[in-house]
Amino acid sequence: MAGVLRGTKNLLQGLHKHGHSALVSSRTMASKTPVGFIGLGNMGRPMAKNLLKNGYPVIASDVFPEACKEIQDLGAQVLDSPAEVADKADRIITMLPSSPHVIEVYTGSNGILKKVKKGSLLIDSSTIDPSVSKDMAAAAEKMGAVFMDAPVSGGVGAANSGKLTFMVGGMEEEFNAAKELLTTMGTNIIYCGEVGTGQAAKICNNMLLAIGMIGTAETMNLGIRLGLDPKLLAQILNMSSGRCWSSDTYNPVPGVMEGVPSANNYQGGFGTTLMAKDLGLAQNTATNTKTPVPLGSLAHQIYRMMCARGYAQKDFSSVFQFLREEENQ
Amino acid sequence: MAGVLRGTKNLLQGLHKHGHSALVSSRTMASKTPVGFIGLGNMGRPMAKNLLKNGYPVIASDVFPEACKEIQDLGAQVLDSPAEVADKADRIITMLPSSPHVIEVYTGSNGILKKVKKGSLLIDSSTIDPSVSKDMAAAAEKMGAVFMDAPVSGGVGAANSGKLTFMVGGMEEEFNAAKELLTTMGTNIIYCGEVGTGQAAKICNNMLLAIGMIGTAETMNLGIRLGLDPKLLAQILNMSSGRCWSSDTYNPVPGVMEGVPSANNYQGGFGTTLMAKDLGLAQNTATNTKTPVPLGSLAHQIYRMMCARGYAQKDFSSVFQFLREEENQ
Amino acid sequence: MAGVLRGTKNLLQGLHKHGHSALVSSRTMASKTPVGFIGLGNMGRPMAKNLLKNGYPVIASDVFPEACKEIQDLGAQVLDSPAEVADKADRIITMLPSSPHVIEVYTGSNGILKKVKKGSLLIDSSTIDPSVSKDMAAAAEKMGAVFMDAPVSGGVGAANSGKLTFMVGGMEEEFNAAKELLTTMGTNIIYCGEVGTGQAAKICNNMLLAIGMIGTAETMNLGIRLGLDPKLLAQILNMSSGRCWSSDTYNPVPGVMEGVPSANNYQGGFGTTLMAKDLGLAQNTATNTKTPVPLGSLAHQIYRMMCARGYAQKDFSSVFQFLREEENQ
Amino acid sequence: MAGVLRGTKNLLQGLHKHGHSALVSSRTMASKTPVGFIGLGNMGRPMAKNLLKNGYPVIASDVFPEACKEIQDLGAQVLDSPAEVADKADRIITMLPSSPHVIEVYTGSNGILKKVKKGSLLIDSSTIDPSVSKDMAAAAEKMGAVFMDAPVSGGVGAANSGKLTFMVGGMEEEFNAAKELLTTMGTNIIYCGEVGTGQAAKICNNMLLAIGMIGTAETMNLGIRLGLDPKLLAQILNMSSGRCWSSDTYNPVPGVMEGVPSANNYQGGFGTTLMAKDLGLAQNTATNTKTPVPLGSLAHQIYRMMCARGYAQKDFSSVFQFLREEENQ
Repeated sequence: MAGVLRGTKNLLQGLHKHGHSALVSSRTMASKTPVGFIGLGNMGRPMAKNLLKNGYPVIASDVFPEACKEIQDLGAQVLDSPAEVADKADRIITMLPSSPHVIEVYTGSNGILKKVKKGSLLIDSSTIDPSVSKDMAAAAEKMGAVFMDAPVSGGVGAANSGKLTFMVGGMEEEFNAAKELLTTMGTNIIYCGEVGTGQAAKICNNMLLAIGMIGTAETMNLGIRLGLDPKLLAQILNMSSGRCWSSDTYNPVPGVMEGVPSANNYQGGFGTTLMAKDLGLAQNTATNTKTPVPLGSLAHQIYRMMCARGYAQKDFSSVFQFLREEENQ
Repeated sequence: MAGVLRGTKNLLQGLHKHGHSALVSSRTMASKTPVGFIGLGNMGRPMAKNLLKNGYPVIASDVFPEACKEIQDLGAQVLDSPAEVADKADRIITMLPSSPHVIEVYTGSNGILKKVKKGSLLIDSSTIDPSVSKDMAAAAEKMGAVFMDAPVSGGVGAANSGKLTFMVGGMEEEFNAAKELLTTMGTNIIYCGEVGTGQAAKICNNMLLAIGMIGTAETMNLGIRLGLDPKLLAQILNMSSGRCWSSDTYNPVPGVMEGVPSANNYQGGFGTTLMAKDLGLAQNTATNTKTPVPLGSLAHQIYRMMCARGYAQKDFSSVFQFLREEENQ
Repeated sequence: MAGVLRGTKNLLQGLHKHGHSALVSSRTMASKTPVGFIGLGNMGRPMAKNLLKNGYPVIASDVFPEACKEIQDLGAQVLDSPAEVADKADRIITMLPSSPHVIEVYTGSNGILKKVKKGSLLIDSSTIDPSVSKDMAAAAEKMGAVFMDAPVSGGVGAANSGKLTFMVGGMEEEFNAAKELLTTMGTNIIYCGEVGTGQAAKICNNMLLAIGMIGTAETMNLGIRLGLDPKLLAQILNMSSGRCWSSDTYNPVPGVMEGVPSANNYQGGFGTTLMAKDLGLAQNTATNTKTPVPLGSLAHQIYRMMCARGYAQKDFSSVFQFLREEENQ
Repeated sequence: MAGVLRGTKNLLQGLHKHGHSALVSSRTMASKTPVGFIGLGNMGRPMAKNLLKNGYPVIASDVFPEACKEIQDLGAQVLDSPAEVADKADRIITMLPSSPHVIEVYTGSNGILKKVKKGSLLIDSSTIDPSVSKDMAAAAEKMGAVFMDAPVSGGVGAANSGKLTFMVGGMEEEFNAAKELLTTMGTNIIYCGEVGTGQAAKICNNMLLAIGMIGTAETMNLGIRLGLDPKLLAQILNMSSGRCWSSDTYNPVPGVMEGVPSANNYQGGFGTTLMAKDLGLAQNTATNTKTPVPLGSLAHQIYRMMCARGYAQKDFSSVFQFLREEENQ
């Protein structure tokens, strides 16, 4: 689809340069008008709740109607399809599991773009391939709407407490309008550049995170085998050039830090299967742009092997456990 | 040799437990008695100068007599062989390029152990295989001397300014005696555990450093290809979970930071060939201890390929350049 | 697109089971009726010539009209678009560089499916993502046509001599009809299974080929460094369990074999950039099916790095040269 | 030890050139004089039996005296130490698990070299680091004896049936003398070059074998996921450029071939832990010679991870199982 739509997009980029101010002026900018929210999973639900808490009427939809129950009880209106939401709200946030879901919710037969109003602001917080974000933006622009990608970091805890980080890509003129809504759900709202760069930033960060985590796990394991105390080794790394977030904030070795998944048998946190998904996106974008990512690629493979060996639901720091010798060997 | 000496070492460990206090008491502990220094290369020379500056008479030796010229002019005594130095000084520091040199300087026919005095303190600051450090410690103990490994981090600049970090392995009772000398050359003197753990800490740190650097290089490269501004991407990573020393302190992308090798065409800094050497040590210790180090191993291979392709003398952050598309492709 | 079309395809699979015999009967099965051919590049041109040589009238089209000149001189009819070809011929072969070209040629505004006749047989010999083959098959089926994927192995030489290997995926009932045409261009016509399995077989073979080639290159390089004569080492490997096609038929070390690219400064053969493309397809299908391919993934990265370092146009066996120490190091 | 002995070896190489003919003439060349055999493990026992069967009196020794029982019953004389064997036999074969054992058996306090006769022929069939072979050869030469490395391929079955392959390194003038003995135990006796090249050839073969096996496993797994029948895929690979010993002779996928470990739940064959050991040797020699071996290195890491996850005792083709999704995922 990327390939097919790209031609269209280029046409639209020209149009966009000349016609944009008209788009902006036609949208209802008055605050506290209804906000659409599509995708009420583990992340979407608390996000929508924070919109409600901040006084925004919410018009929601999800393929699983029961997912809407909680925010319906809190006053949200629930509709049957993305198209119906788009008919009622000119600012819509989507939070979906993967690229195909996003394509369906935007361009499907009951998708947002079937009934989107001119000038609507469409913010997608899903983590997906940046080229799909670009395709969606081009398709939205054809209908006179504005699409921005705004993936999050921070997990369910941050979604509940309204402390997510949003990495936002799209037209700079629209960033403030997006920020107004996103600040109800997050504390860091970062403008990254044109459409797709929010995804790019998210994917890049998570690729480097995965590399740092596996690197920390194998380094700690090697040090322990060589007779170093794990806490002391972590201290030495953290005051030296080996320092990284995985060594100083989320150490994967049980007993080194408290309040992290390694202290709790790798329960909670960020699941290996989710990390494998993000690394798959990184790999795809690297392949498509012909960029060598040797360590990112191997990190992807290691998390994929872990999924095959029973680690799918454990926190991604459990790679430390995966690499250690089994007890009865 | 490791295998052969290990049996001996175990015998000696028993002996050591009972006989150690005698060793300690027999050494001249009075400060400012002569200190031996063997190995006056780019690192050893400024280290020896700092000993002289702090009032320690230095008795030096090097296979290249001209290397001794500078500190001889500053008042050091120069002798022909490690054995002769050991005959005159009961505290000796060695700073040599690799394991075989260390073996030769300690156990060779004109080596330190040929004439070492009972109770001497032998501190090796070379970066070598920890199993060789253990062998040297066992051989030294057989002669009634104490061997400690104390590799450094910090490079020539830190050696000149006396701001090295020393990671020290060996008998805890001897740590203060070693620290007295090492503080003249460094600001961080860290006790890591039994003999060999200084090397282990150094090797572990540099392995994680190499992983972080290549990871940062490929992540920055991918982000740039995806349309992100490199400075902005570095900022995002540095406030997120992708943060590491290579992204926030030594960024490999020209234009992101000042005062780092990437700002100076990868001149200076820590050469790729030196990083490849340290990764070779990490790989050897991992192989010998049967520890899986998948990313460390691939990092080793990448630095090895870079050496084969003309990057041997550039700073190790030049991996960013190595991974980028050539201009005329 | 894959995701979007997949739902459609499932519907169509039901339809296909009941309605297929009708499709078959409606096609002109008489031999020597015109055959359409779209994509007259280095591979397509000699393939179309072999169809002509075997007495098939050819109706051709290419985005670069000059590419059609040669076969036009040999009697082929040249039309302006895939749609026009589809209007005239009910058996069409396509040979295109990548997935987006295939999507455009089949589903674009002047694509085959705009004017395809019911019961037409569409054979795609491009090497592309198997999921795109499945999408094309579903789209073709919606128009009452039959799509088969039939990628080739063998290169330009085999295309000229009519000795290609075709790996064919699609409805088994149609295999004989496809084989009739393909035997004019190839000697091995292998039925692989349902649509997409031709691509799968091609991609799998090339991934294992790349792994074997890099493995052979690094093994030969290591052996030479350890003092072995390269010809002798190749002999030993070839009579032992290290044997593979790259060691016994296409050895990458200059001087070991004659008549292979390594004997001719890595000119000719199968370019590194083409291998990188096929490994990108392998990586994408592996990512999409969540299959760990650690060595295939690293092979992809190595060929990608080679493209970045000036090896894009050399034969893929030049990885031996890439891994060797530069002369002036 | 390598480093220490290397100087000695260079001295001896000079000596060897001039004085060698004397060494040769001083040895008992008459056939059927006693042959020493040290190391009666799973491989050594059947090898020694084949010597006996061929009429050679055998004088044996092993650290575990019970290992000698079987060949003692067949007529072999058993002595207490390698030194005593060397005192009685001037042709000795050693078959030991690893480098440290070889160092001990040759240079230890009761080692062969303590009592070796001038002109003795010492053949080591262990698989060890080639640099240790060189050290042993130098030490033997100092005592007037000749050392050759002659590692085997073929496993216990081939050892029993006398069908091993020997890869022999050492002085070419001695090859025939070695061959006379080795032909009683093997069918292929290959002269590889100077001392250490037998090991080099063995290590190189096994590294490429490991790469081919993992490559085959991941390729077959990917193909199956993409809908290909495993037997068909194996056939396609085996007639194409993906062909290798692991795909056509020792396929890792259950059901594709009979009579291989994959047909028997990966019992028997060549254990993962043994492959990991050989890959460790390959990695060490590559590191020491600064040779990049990216796939060999990753193969090593994968077999090391498998050992950590319970695959140590399974045949090395079980990597197919390791990479597959667990059933209850």
